[in-house]
This record gives sequence, C-alpha cells and structure tokens, in this order.
Amino acid sequence: MKALRIGIVGLGRGFMLTLPALRAHPRVEIAAAFDLRASPRAQFTREFGAKSYESLEGLLAADIDAVYIATPHELHATQAIAALGAGKHVLVEKPMAISVAECVAMEAAARRAGKLLLVGPSHGFDAPVRRAAELIASGGFGAVRQLTAMNFTDFMYRPRRPEELDSARGGGVVYSQAAHQIDVARRLVGRDVTFVRAVAGNWDSSRPSEGAYAAMMGFEGGAVASLTYSGYAHYDSDELVNWISELGREKDPEQYGDTRRALRNLEPATESAAKIRRAYGEDGASTSEPPAPYHEHFGFVLVSCERADLKLSPQGITLYGDEHREFLAIDPPSLPRVEVIDEFVEGALGLVQPIHDGRWGVKTVACCAALLESSRTGSEIAPTAMIIDTLEAVSV
Amino acid sequence: MKALRIGIVGLGRGFMLTLPALRAHPRVEIAAAFDLRASPRAQFTREFGAKSYESLEGLLAADIDAVYIATPHELHATQAIAALGAGKHVLVEKPMAISVAECVAMEAAARRAGKLLLVGPSHGFDAPVRRAAELIASGGFGAVRQLTAMNFTDFMYRPRRPEELDSARGGGVVYSQAAHQIDVARRLVGRDVTFVRAVAGNWDSSRPSEGAYAAMMGFEGGAVASLTYSGYAHYDSDELVNWISELGREKDPEQYGDTRRALRNLEPATESAAKIRRAYGEDGASTSEPPAPYHEHFGFVLVSCERADLKLSPQGITLYGDEHREFLAIDPPSLPRVEVIDEFVEGALGLVQPIHDGRWGVKTVACCAALLESSRTGSEIAPTAMIIDTLEAVSV
Repeated sequence: MKALRIGIVGLGRGFMLTLPALRAHPRVEIAAAFDLRASPRAQFTREFGAKSYESLEGLLAADIDAVYIATPHELHATQAIAALGAGKHVLVEKPMAISVAECVAMEAAARRAGKLLLVGPSHGFDAPVRRAAELIASGGFGAVRQLTAMNFTDFMYRPRRPEELDSARGGGVVYSQAAHQIDVARRLVGRDVTFVRAVAGNWDSSRPSEGAYAAMMGFEGGAVASLTYSGYAHYDSDELVNWISELGREKDPEQYGDTRRALRNLEPATESAAKIRRAYGEDGASTSEPPAPYHEHFGFVLVSCERADLKLSPQGITLYGDEHREFLAIDPPSLPRVEVIDEFVEGALGLVQPIHDGRWGVKTVACCAALLESSRTGSEIAPTAMIIDTLEAVSV
Repeated sequence: MKALRIGIVGLGRGFMLTLPALRAHPRVEIAAAFDLRASPRAQFTREFGAKSYESLEGLLAADIDAVYIATPHELHATQAIAALGAGKHVLVEKPMAISVAECVAMEAAARRAGKLLLVGPSHGFDAPVRRAAELIASGGFGAVRQLTAMNFTDFMYRPRRPEELDSARGGGVVYSQAAHQIDVARRLVGRDVTFVRAVAGNWDSSRPSEGAYAAMMGFEGGAVASLTYSGYAHYDSDELVNWISELGREKDPEQYGDTRRALRNLEPATESAAKIRRAYGEDGASTSEPPAPYHEHFGFVLVSCERADLKLSPQGITLYGDEHREFLAIDPPSLPRVEVIDEFVEGALGLVQPIHDGRWGVKTVACCAALLESSRTGSEIAPTAMIIDTLEAVSV
C-alpha cells in the first residue's frame, strides 16, 4: 500500500490540531517539516525522527510527495505555488488565500503541475455536514430552499498575531471564520452561489478589523442562506449546540468572559507570544490531549428543504419531517479532522474525486471577498463575476 | 376619570385574544360591536349587555369614541377610514392593511379627523421588546449593529380562511407574520429601515402562498437585521425560548406534527369552519382561560450592540456584557396585550405620544411590501421610496 510522504509547512497551532489525524492515517508518513523557529523544529525531529528545514526550499527539495501548509493566511499562495511547482500535492489550511487573484494563481499552478490542491480543514468537512449534504442530495426532502446559520464566538479576543487583526492582510473574521460558514452552506446546498449581500462590522477600535457580519447568499436554483457571525465574545451560540465547543469538547457555560479577562491581563507586547505558546513544540502546548468526544461544528445550522428541516449538531442530525421528528446519531469521531486527511490522501493517490479542491476553494474565497465588497459598497456582489474578472485580468 | 367607549369591529379570534386586556382596563368600556354573524352578536349582547350591529354603519352611528378593528386584513383600510371619517379613534390589528397605498390613505384619514390610529397588537408591544428597546436607547451598550431574529412555526397548517392563503389578498406569512418580526426589529433598533433584500418561499402547492422568507434589512446608522421565518411546521424554534409558545404558555415538545395531522383529518370544505370554531361566541372557544404565565414572543431575537448582546425571552432579557452576563427578569404579564390597550387609551386621551401610530404602521407595511417586491425582482428595495412613490401617486 503506497504511502504519501508529507512535509509540514508551519509547525503552529493548525498543525497541532491536525496532527492526530495525520499521525494515525495508515497511508500518511510525516516525513519532514519547515518552520522558521528552532524550538519546534527540534521537537519535530525528536518526535518523528524526521528532518526539519529552516527554509521552504529545503523542504521542497526533500523526498516528499506532498505538503500540508498551516502558516499565516498571507503566505498560503506563495508557498502553495512553490510546492506545486516542485511537483508536490498541497493541502492548504482555509482560507485558501486572501484574494481571488491569489486563489486563481494557485489553482492554475495545480493544473500546470497535475497535482492535487486541497483546502482544509474547514467545518465543511465535519461528519454531520457531510451526512446532511448526502441526505439532502439524495432528494428525499425536496429542494433546499433556506439555510440559517449563526455562530457567536470569542474569536476577536483570543491571543492574536498582528496580521490576524489587519484586514489588509486577511485578518478579521471574514477570511478566517466566514470561510467555514460559507463552506458549510455551500456543501449543504450543493449549488453555486449567485449573489452575496452583506454588512460586516468593525465595532471595537482596540481590535480594529471586521469582527462580525450578517450575510445573505443566493444560490442557483433559488435557495437562500442567512449567515450571521459575531466574534465579539458576548452571546455564545454554543448554548444552541448542547454546550459543545467548536472543537467537539464539553464547555462550561460558567466560564463567561474568561477570554476577554485573560486578554485584559496580558501585556499587548506579549500577545503574539501568548498565541505561540499554544503552538507545536512550545511549553504550554500538548499533543497528548485525548480526542474530542463529539464532532467539530460551526454553530447553529438549520437547513429547510421543501418537505423537511434538518438541524445539525455535534452528535448528529435532527430531521423534522411533515409529521415526525427523528434524531440521526452520528458515531463519535475516531479522531478530529480525519475526514480531511482521508480526502487529501485518497485524492492525491487518485482514488476519489475530491470535493474541496482548488476550484471549490476559489469559490469560497470569492464569497468572502464578495462579502467584504458588498459591505463596502452597499450593493449585491456576484462571486462568480469576481472570479471571471480576475481570470480576465490574469489572461491580459 | 374619563373612559373610552370602544366598539368592536369583528368578533373573531383577534377579539378573543385581546378581550381580557380590554375588559380589565379601568378606562375602557366595551360599548358595542359589529359582526356579520348572528351567533357571536347574541353572545356579545348577553355577555356585555351592549348593543351589537350587523353593519359597520350601525356601529359607527352608536355612542362610541373608538373602534377596535379585528377583521380580515383586506377589510382594514375601508373600515378604518370609515371609522376615522365618523370621528372615532381606531385601533387596528396588524397588518395595518395589505398595501402601502391603503396605509397612506388610512394615515391621511387619521390626520384629517384629528383622531388616533394605532396598529396593534403586534409582538413589537411585548414587554421584553419594550424593555430591551429602552435599555438600548439609553445608550449604555453603544450603537446597535446587528439583530438576528428567527421564528419557525406551524402557521401554514393551522385552519385558514381562503384569503389567508391568497397572496393577492394579503395572505401568506409576510403581511401576517413578517409584520411582527419587522415591528420587533424596528422597535429594538429604533431607526428607519433603508433597504430590504429578501427571498420569500412558496414551497407547498397545497397551501399556495408565501410560507417562509429570509430577509436582510438595513437601518439608518448602519445596523443590519437578519430575519428568518418559516411557517411550514417542521423545526419549531420555540425550543430556543424554553418551550414557551408565542402566546406565553408552556408547550409540549412531544406534540410534534399535531397541527399538520389535524389538518389532514379535516375535510377541505370545513377548514374555514374549523377556524371559526376558535372565534368568539363559538362552541370550541372559551374566553375564560387563565391568563398566560409568560410574556408573548416572536421566536429567537438577539440584538448585538457594540458593547453587549441582548437576548430576549418570554421571561426577560439576558445581557451579555464584556465580562459578565446577567438575566433581567421581567415580571409576568398581568394580562396579555395590556400594553396595547394602554398605549391606545392613553394615546386617544392625549396622555402619551403613541409609538405604534399610523406613521409607524405605514413603515412596517412598506417593509412587508418591500420584502415581497425584493423577492419578486431579485433586487434591494427601499421601503421609504415605496411610501414616497405612493404619496406622489396619491397627490397626482
């Protein structure tokens, strides 16, 4: 059985969250890594007996088949294009990149190379989303007509690196968080987005980036999605999903305000360091936590089809039919994010046609860009038109 | 203390729901009634020792100061204009009427007569809405930025008269139900609506009218509201408000599907009759139910201000501040809808400046009309422009 030798680009928090699934996959070999920091490189070499590099060029020259890119958003495009150019399959964290033009260039590089470009993890991969999408696509409930999703988190007050709060560098909640919600909605509706109308909010001058939005997305065939998000750490919508956290763990509702209090007690100069402490190979971080008992999720998600509503939860799906209601339990995850690694490995080995490939990723980023553009201009934006305009600009 | 002698226009279900508050108000005298049906007229005369009429003209010639109009939507405008022309104050059920032009004519009639035109009951009057609006208006939480409201009910499958499912006659959920949600949102945000973008859905050909919608409303100052509604009797959002029904009573979640089953067992020819049985003076109806223990509500309502979120419930308001969360209990209602009768009586007697007057009502109906027009045309509609266009058409 042929294994995929994967090189890790960025030994940060993303890598830590995906590591259990990478490590456990029978067809994955964690073969090498690149990071600018010496400490996680040393830890990586100790833990995996594999070489680590202080440059991306070094990693790409190593004996690997693929890379997993888990670096800051603004580096995704350059790194992915370099890896594809070197003949590697690429798994890149969402957001795929921070502009439609970057995504188009990445997808073009993947086609030139004849290699897989997959965008994940995102909550569009979560098992309840996948199961609901399959049920909906089977047609038994009639067409999807409405989707209602909302998520209220403390995103804006977790320790952040400067670029994470800089809109010009893909900061704020749109590229980072709307990308999840849009992926979930697109996966469930199963059609292309025709328009986005949105208002994004920048409500706290001490954290000056978009921290909230309300968006309406129209789909081919007429379905409509209402997406609401706030990262301002007030209401917590995890109460609507049985007090299970985004990462599938039980959550204590009494810890209200903890994130903001912790940030208040942090010197501004040490905020980036506080984030790094949660990354791979650092003091505060552990890769030995037990796996989460529930599926990951992205808040309240309700899909209305003509003959039934479906409500997603970290434990399964509630089906609201004409006269009967039924809960479809979904077995707890073996490991978080295993669906992503499955899709990447099987896609790279040519065993399945992946869903979340570069074409998929361009469209989600186009929706994010349309969301911001709609908010800026006060008008409706067609994400497909943004992609076409970019393609024309590139071909000129 | 001067009392207001009120004549009832339409002894139906609306009258029954408002009757306890009318009867208990120290300044209200239920003085006369008009209905086309003999049986409720007889019941009315027995119960109140007051005269009832089989024509509106008869009622308007009686010794009354005001009327309460609780008839089918399409009759509101004609009846209100007649009553105002006869020098009576008018309380008219929502929707005020089923077109902007009708509403403009009603408001013009009120001004000519120098009488009060009040639109209610609607859930915009509910005590938690009022309290939250006052808290928000006091400014302590910063500006309102986002409002998220959703309500999933069985509206479309309750017994209906034919016009209630005929869009051309103001049927479907928009005039009947969006009018509530828009009133709630407008009251909480406290600013005029600048645009409506919406998709209304007509998903069941056996009940052919708009049964659901998703709407985005923008407000002066930049706030945005996301309003979602489905009356298709699948998911029930009362689970998000502690399983308390719209009318403030405890609800059994195990009665899933009952409304649709009951309708299925009804002969189509007897559906209107089934509705009438729930009206005043009919066998199945009772005016002696104990008052509801909780406030009325219109589903999930969350308001995001710059420095706090507020979540409404039938028991009070949860305030989600920066570091603390607090529940503001609101005393249970003495009687349902007493706020409406208070505002009407005090407004008619010149003691207060009413909020939900004809000017208010025109704007809510303009938002309903804009919602339908946006859905029909696929474009954003400014409700104010609809009012101005109507005024110009009238003045020509």
